[in-house]
Parts: sequence; C-alpha cells; structure tokens
Amino acid sequence: YTSSFWVFLWEKGYQETDSVVSSVTTKVKGVTMTNTSNLGTRIWDVADYVIPPQEKNAVFVMTNMIFTLNQSQSHCPELPDDNTECNNDSSCIPGYVSTHSNGIQTGACIPYNSSIKTCEIFAWCPVEDDYHIPKPAFLQEAENFTILVKNNIWYPKFNFSKRNILPSFNSTYLKNCIYDAQTDPFCPIFRLGKIVEAAGQNFQEMAVEGGVMGLQINWDCNLDRAASHCVPKYSFRRLDNKDSANTVSPGYNFRFAKYYKDSSGIETRTLIKAYGIRLDIIVFGKAGKFDVIPTMINIGSGLALFGVATVLCDIVVLYCMKKRYYYREKKYKYVEDYELGTSETYGTDS
Amino acid sequence: YTSSFWVFLWEKGYQETDSVVSSVTTKVKGVTMTNTSNLGTRIWDVADYVIPPQEKNAVFVMTNMIFTLNQSQSHCPELPDDNTECNNDSSCIPGYVSTHSNGIQTGACIPYNSSIKTCEIFAWCPVEDDYHIPKPAFLQEAENFTILVKNNIWYPKFNFSKRNILPSFNSTYLKNCIYDAQTDPFCPIFRLGKIVEAAGQNFQEMAVEGGVMGLQINWDCNLDRAASHCVPKYSFRRLDNKDSANTVSPGYNFRFAKYYKDSSGIETRTLIKAYGIRLDIIVFGKAGKFDVIPTMINIGSGLALFGVATVLCDIVVLYCMKKRYYYREKKYKYVEDYELGTSETYGTDS
Amino acid sequence: YTSSFWVFLWEKGYQETDSVVSSVTTKVKGVTMTNTSNLGTRIWDVADYVIPPQEKNAVFVMTNMIFTLNQSQSHCPELPDDNTECNNDSSCIPGYVSTHSNGIQTGACIPYNSSIKTCEIFAWCPVEDDYHIPKPAFLQEAENFTILVKNNIWYPKFNFSKRNILPSFNSTYLKNCIYDAQTDPFCPIFRLGKIVEAAGQNFQEMAVEGGVMGLQINWDCNLDRAASHCVPKYSFRRLDNKDSANTVSPGYNFRFAKYYKDSSGIETRTLIKAYGIRLDIIVFGKAGKFDVIPTMINIGSGLALFGVATVLCDIVVLYCMKKRYYYREKKYKYVEDYELGTSETYGTDS
Repeated sequence: YTSSFWVFLWEKGYQETDSVVSSVTTKVKGVTMTNTSNLGTRIWDVADYVIPPQEKNAVFVMTNMIFTLNQSQSHCPELPDDNTECNNDSSCIPGYVSTHSNGIQTGACIPYNSSIKTCEIFAWCPVEDDYHIPKPAFLQEAENFTILVKNNIWYPKFNFSKRNILPSFNSTYLKNCIYDAQTDPFCPIFRLGKIVEAAGQNFQEMAVEGGVMGLQINWDCNLDRAASHCVPKYSFRRLDNKDSANTVSPGYNFRFAKYYKDSSGIETRTLIKAYGIRLDIIVFGKAGKFDVIPTMINIGSGLALFGVATVLCDIVVLYCMKKRYYYREKKYKYVEDYELGTSETYGTDS
Repeated sequence: YTSSFWVFLWEKGYQETDSVVSSVTTKVKGVTMTNTSNLGTRIWDVADYVIPPQEKNAVFVMTNMIFTLNQSQSHCPELPDDNTECNNDSSCIPGYVSTHSNGIQTGACIPYNSSIKTCEIFAWCPVEDDYHIPKPAFLQEAENFTILVKNNIWYPKFNFSKRNILPSFNSTYLKNCIYDAQTDPFCPIFRLGKIVEAAGQNFQEMAVEGGVMGLQINWDCNLDRAASHCVPKYSFRRLDNKDSANTVSPGYNFRFAKYYKDSSGIETRTLIKAYGIRLDIIVFGKAGKFDVIPTMINIGSGLALFGVATVLCDIVVLYCMKKRYYYREKKYKYVEDYELGTSETYGTDS
Repeated sequence: YTSSFWVFLWEKGYQETDSVVSSVTTKVKGVTMTNTSNLGTRIWDVADYVIPPQEKNAVFVMTNMIFTLNQSQSHCPELPDDNTECNNDSSCIPGYVSTHSNGIQTGACIPYNSSIKTCEIFAWCPVEDDYHIPKPAFLQEAENFTILVKNNIWYPKFNFSKRNILPSFNSTYLKNCIYDAQTDPFCPIFRLGKIVEAAGQNFQEMAVEGGVMGLQINWDCNLDRAASHCVPKYSFRRLDNKDSANTVSPGYNFRFAKYYKDSSGIETRTLIKAYGIRLDIIVFGKAGKFDVIPTMINIGSGLALFGVATVLCDIVVLYCMKKRYYYREKKYKYVEDYELGTSETYGTDS
C-alpha cells in the first residue's frame, strides 16, 4: 500500500502532463582568416561557412573543406583506383558509370599523371581529389565561433509559454556572456569549442572530418510551482558515431558548388566538399499540473495494488492453512447452513 | 463510481490511440516590385525571396533586407563602435578579431568617414552597415503572398491516412480559395498577412524585423466515427518572442551571399541580411479507435476507484463506529468462533 | 483474470518504456548525363541535383526540371491564359498583379507569339513556360542513384545508443551492399529506384512530377534481451498523395535560381523549376526494460479487473437469485443478528 502511494507521489500521479511545442532560431558569429596557395589570404564570415544559411532546429558550421576550382564540363582522366586505372583504351568501356565514378567514361585511356594512366571521363573537370583531407582543419578557429540559440517553448494544455532568454537577463549580459555549466548555466550563447568539449570530444579532431552534435534543451516543469522555477537545462552529446573505423564516410560532410558564368557564357563552378559540425537542437520536456482526472485514475490503480494483499490472503488461507476445511465450508456453504440453522430453530419451538 | 465512469467515457478509455505521422510540402506564390536607389526597379519572385528554396515542414519568406553590393576581399575601415574607433594606429592591434568584428584588424587606423576614424580590417569590403533597418519593410507587399500547404497524415496503427486537401474540393475552388476561419476553414491556401493577423500580430510591424510563425494543424480524429469527420483544424501562433526589448537580435534574420566572378576571375559577392517570416508547420493529432485492451485496463482502474468505497467503509466501521467491538470480533475471530460453536453442538448431542 | 494477465504480459506491463532520440545524415551518390538542345551534353553530379546540399532528416534529389536560361529584369509578354490574353492595351491594367502572374503589368498589349497577344509585364524575362513537363523525366537515371543513410539512436532513460551500421559489417560489405528486404535487410545503402518500388510506386512515373517518400526506420527494442537483438526495421511509404487528379500542383516541385553577373555588371539568372523526390527519414521506436514502478501500476489495474468478478457476483446474488432474502438479510443485518444471538445465549445461561 505504501509502495503504491509512493508511486503515486513520486510519479506525480496527481498531475496532468503535456509535452512541449518549441521553436528554435540560431545565429552564428565569428570570422577567421586562412592563407593557402590556391586561395591566397581569404577571410571567412558567416555567409561563407554556414550552409544552408538557415535551417529549422539545426545549423551547420563548415570547419574543413576540399576546394576544386574552375570546374567545367569537359573531358579529363578519372581518379585512379582499381576499376579506373588502365593500360590502353581496351580496358575502358565507353558510357560506363559506377556508383563511385565522377563522370561517364569515353572509352579512352589517358595519363592521370607521369606514372599512372586512367580512363578518360566526361565530367566536371578537373575531378575532385579528396584523398587527402586538410589537417589541421582549414577553419580550425571555428572553435571560437559563438552560436546564439533562441528557443521559445509552449505547453498548449496549460497555455504556458517561456523562452530560454530569461527575463532576469539584461542586454549587456546577453551581449557578452558565454554558456558555462558552472558559471553561466542559462546563457543562451555557446562557444562551438565548448559544446564539443562538453560532449567529451576533441574539437580539433572533430573539425577535420566533421560530425553531428546534439544540443539538448530540457524543459521539465512542475507548473504547480512558480513559473520562475521552469528553466531550460542544456546538455550536449555527439550524435554521430565517433570511431571512424569500420564506417563508410565517417564524420559529416557534403558537397556543394558555386556556379559562375564567364564572359563567353560558359558555366564553370567551384566544387566544395564541406566537412563541418552540424548542431541539432533537440528540445524536450514535460510539464505537469494538478488535475483531478489523472489523480482519480492513479488512486484507482494505486488502491487496486492494495487489493493484492486481500487476494493473496484468500489464496493462502483457502489452500495452504490448516483448518482450511472449516474456513472453506463457511465461505461457500453459507446460505445452506443458514437454512438448516433456521429449520432447526423452528423444530425446537414445537 | 459515477466519476470513474465519467472519466472512462470522457477520456475515451475504451479506445486505443495512435499519434500522427505526417508530411508537409509548401508552395509560395506572389511577385512584388521595389524601387530603390542602389538596386533600381526590381521585381521579386519566389526564387528570389524563398530561402532556402525548399525546407522540411517550414518555409522562409524574406520580407526585408539589407543589401551590401560588390563586396570583395580587401581592406577597409571597420564599423565604428566603442572597440573599433581609434585616433592612431597604436589603438589597433594587428590580427585582433572579436565576436562582433567583420574582419581581422591590420593595425592601421583609417578614416571611416569625414568625422570618425576606425581600425582598418581585412574583410569582405565594404562591410555591411545594418544600423538602419529599412522601414517600412522592403517587401511589404509580402502580405499578399499566398502559401499552399499540402499535408498528408497517416495513423500507422489503424493504417488510416488522409490529406488536408479534402476530397470534396474541386480544382477551381482550390485554385481560388483563401483560408478564412469563418468562410473557408478547410482551404489549404493561406494569405501570409492573414496568418500573422490570426496570431494577433501586425504584419507590417513583423515584416520589418522578421519573426517565426507557427501554423498548427490539428488532426484529432475519433475513428469510431466516419472518416469524413476527421478533418484538419488550423491555428496560428507567433513562436518567437514579440517584445524586442531586452533581446539580442529580436525578430528573425540571417545572412547569405550570392557569389560572382568578374572577367578577371576575382570573386565578388552580394551580402544580404535577410529579415523575414519563417513559417513552421507543426502537425499534431491523436486518433482513437475502440480496442479491447485499453478498455479492460481502464475498467480496471475505474472499478478500483469503486474499491475506495469499500476500503473506507471498513476503516470507518472498524475504528470509528460504536458496536465496533462485535464487528471486529466477527471479522477476525471467525474461524475460532465456529470451532467453539461446533464443539458445543457435539456436546449437546451427548 | 487470465485476460488481465495476458494484457499484462502482452503489453509488457512490467517494462518502463522510453522513446528514441535520433540523428540522421544522408549521402547521395551517382552521376548521369543528359543531352538536350538548349543545354547540350551535360553531366549531373551530387552538387547539381541535391538541393539544398544538406538537410536535417531529409534529402531532395532532383529528377526532372524546367530550365529558363538567361533571365534578366526587363519587359516581356505574360504567359497566355484567360486573364492575360488581350486584343489591345485597354484590357491590360498598369500595375496589375495577381497570385498567378509572373510580373507586374505595364499596361501594354504585345504579341506573345504569331497568333496570341498578351499583356506586357515587367519581370524576370523571358518568363518560364511550365505547361509542358519533360517526359520521360530529365534525370530518369536517378533511379540508380544510391543513398547512404547513417542513423544513430539513443534511449536517454536507459542510456542505450546504437547505429544502423551494425558492428557485424565490414567496410567492403558497406562499400558494395544495396538494401534489399530479403537479401540485405540491414544494409544502410538504398537504391532510389528500389525505395520507390518498395512503396508500390513506379519510379519513372514519380520522377516526372516528383513526390515525397518516407523512409521509416523502426527501432523497437526490448532491452531485457541482448543489445544485438535491437536492430532497425526499414519500411517505405509514399507520403504525398499519388493521384494527381483533383490536386493543385500534384507531386513535388519548387523553383530556385542561379544568379550570374555579366561583365557589364547586369544580373542575370537561370531559373529552374525542380521536380524531384524528397526523402523524409522518419525514425521511430520504443525501448522497454523491466522496471518495478510500471509493474506495480499494471498489476494494480490488472487485479482491479479481477475485482469485476466479485462485484458482478454480488449484483447477481443480491437481485436475481432465489433465496436472496436470506442472503441479503445475512449481508446487511449481520451485526444485529449477532447481538440478538449473544443476548439469547446469555438468556439460556440464566
């Protein structure tokens, strides 16, 4: 009985619950400079490294990339691998294309470099060579980029809504604070490096091949208490699989291109294989508030538990105890006994 | 007892429930013209103001923007603020970059305008000046844009699926109808202005700084009734926080760029800070259908409630009532009494 | 009683349950070549047909498109329809714009072609003519594109996480396998054509007008058993409505543009109306593990069911059975009987 009661209280059996409806917007800040042979000195800002520029409940920050400049539709040698290396045209099938090819074979076998020959393809040429991933990451300073996460939540049943920018904050605090589990647990601005670290990962490692991070916002609220007690709890996890062993395409990357047209109207593009950190913002939470219906239902099953005792008693008594004979008789032969009893009484009267 | 019964019926205790699986696609329609000094007369159509062109369960319509044309990687003065204004080079640190800077300081202090000097930076120049947001909104006519929302739902457990384009509609109606809570509550085409209005907001105000709107589609269905009774219920909310006071970056905006290459191969871009309305389409709903298992479970706890009566009775009787003595004796001393009784009877025989 | 017990076991009443937290990333592979009059021979790779390049829990593959090359902001005749066809300027209202128009009317009436005249508009000219959808689909070979779906799941309550790339796989298998319900039910690489087929659709048909496919990953796990028993179950559905009859804009398509600047700085764009297949990856699942609290609760309501028997018995006995008189008397007049009984006994003593 006590146990069931404990359940009742512990599980807040007297509350009606509702789950959260939420909206999330993010804003990344930070610039960094790179200096490479093929690009020269280049500055990178939000419009360059956040792709696509806006997403729902997520944001992608490019931390590493492989550039392939000035691609145009033409003919060039395929990347060398077991299937594409060749000695003469006979080993290249015109029109052949596989899942891993960059283009369609023309049937010719041409030199890829001084030592190797590969089948010629019609493709965006030159083809991308992603054998060597830049290490350290191209935009390693992304570690210091900050992400402002604006999250509004709503509990429809209770028409209770709140935001992760708490009313107690003033603008100056918000302009300068950085989330820290100890010192600033409610600051909605996160340092990218800290997020990764908080998930027990190494940012510079992760930046090279990319990955998916989960920023979890927990809004469990007991609305029987003051609204000011209903505050977000942030936690961080790496959502994709860390060990790159035994994985096809570890980390997180995708390809996109910027298209240009030269004066003669011929289309060229810059292909970018973007490695980076995708941050999924996952909002969960349950709000509870006293309500009579669940209370009754739970008291119901709670007391039913009490019933167990009774039932077990009977079973014990009926089938295990000595003296069960009398007891059982009493239990089942009742009405008849009574009759006999009464008839006798009549008898004594005469 | 009645109360528990009421719970049972009211809460549809006899039904198994399932939650909705849904897919949403959207299509925006509308064109508008603007006439400004730096852009001249310009027409805006879907491909221009919907960014990114397709999203899952969401769509963003740009309503206002700040253009920065012909940016190129070069040197220029930083925007003036407390940290960047300077009198001479000594107050600028080469390589310095903060969260709010647009580029990396070169160490020089150069005139920003006739009156102010700021630190020179290497960045996408000229840097964006977003101190003044166009007001009224640049694309204020977005108010008349329409959004077609196609929503298909599915209740896996009952293998019941339906769409928000009801079979009763004919094409001509769908081509011309506009959602209206009173006159056209089932038309899946929404006027952007009406959505904002229905949420109790002012469109023109919202268009300036942007915001996040929630279009909620509720599919609560009682599948014990005819499928035709299962229809969507639309409701509208503003999901982000309205009051722009005490908020870092109120409303909703993000930056993106269009990249160009001039004939000499130098990359330039047009940076656009896009303010606008993001519409999140939130589909919820629960379907219920008679099923024996929950029925039993609920009858169970329902009757358990009934049990309360009994239990209380006992408690009352045992500890409060006068005559409790006899009663309790009867309740617990039963078997023994019986024995005595019988033995006596034998005695009378002899 | 048995029934309630069956419920208890069948519904795993003794388990605490948790629902899944998941992250999904996708990677499309495949190239194809097209040969058309206005584009010439052209190769299409991932960067060309996946728009936007990355999405959360979804991916869009363009299978068909309508190109409108070299659009610029200028004047041209509107597409002919009931509202736009005209005989003279009087039937064109300057500044008129409707939901379906491509631009803003100038008020002039100009020849659209040799036979028809339509109102002149200021717009991105020439305007797109999407009356004729290419058939068969432009990128019909998308059927052979493959999609790698990487899915990591997590059950917070039990801190149990797993991925759809099972540990038993080796890299060579993953490089070459293709999902097949019979032969490779756990291979995370899907052939686009197979997905559509598995949903009972015709790919080539779907490719023309596009559509929305659901790839459902079910992670129902009984964590009382070995983790190796917790494996994903894939299923496929078409989420949008198939029959294009009685539908505004059937299938799935959207417009986007690539922007160019010619040497003279005038902006031109290529407008693309993209038809294609959007794949929504829907992850659901419930994990169960033995826990004492739900066990008690369920036993509770379970036994309560047992209570029904008793209650019904009483009702039957009290109001239907013959001899009810005695019985009822016994039931309610108990204490009094007893008194009388005892008093009599005393009497006999004297």
